[in-house]
Amino acid sequence: MYEEIKYDEKTGLVPVVTQDSRNGDVIMPAYMNKEALERTMQTGLATYWSRSRNGIWVKRQSESGNVQLVSEVWTDCDLDSILLKVKQVGPGACHEKNPDGRAKWSCFFRRMK
Amino acid sequence: MYEEIKYDEKTGLVPVVTQDSRNGDVIMPAYMNKEALERTMQTGLATYWSRSRNGIWVKRQSESGNVQLVSEVWTDCDLDSILLKVKQVGPGACHEKNPDGRAKWSCFFRRMK
Repeated sequence: MYEEIKYDEKTGLVPVVTQDSRNGDVIMPAYMNKEALERTMQTGLATYWSRSRNGIWVKRQSESGNVQLVSEVWTDCDLDSILLKVKQVGPGACHEKNPDGRAKWSCFFRRMK
Repeated sequence: MYEEIKYDEKTGLVPVVTQDSRNGDVIMPAYMNKEALERTMQTGLATYWSRSRNGIWVKRQSESGNVQLVSEVWTDCDLDSILLKVKQVGPGACHEKNPDGRAKWSCFFRRMK
């Protein structure tokens, strides 16, 4: 089915949301291109497209102290969005840090309401 | 804080993921423009931008048998994505139906892995 994913015509990207499969926390938003999705499916490691760095981006221990082991990959009714369920290994998904210097567990730490 | 949200420069939209606040299910991907976010914050009803219909779209009982009462609104570290936690009232979030004719609970019903 993953060959049928509809990438944005202009950017070649599809939005992704990553959820921890154990506690259900939504931990980060991301994007994938075709190669990132294929690598995710093949390796079992969450692999994204970094828009800021303009390249493939594997969550690796060496970069952020955090790895995401893929449990499940889902797509939606329109095949233009991906839900990744992962076991997050390491302090957290976010590049922002807590006061103790450890990565924040989830990128969604700003509550508006 | 919601005045600081960074909408896509070209489309004026921000990606949204909606999660049921009771069981943690990720139930749909969506988009908002500035007006949709403001209405969501003001009314407490999940309000999106429909790209297919090119207009503001409130989840209403009259359309789909489904309303989403907003519990919490979060944004991410980069302020360019929104996590909406809702109490979903009605059969489901998706425009696709189960064999019994009721809306599917979640748009993420296609498992790829």
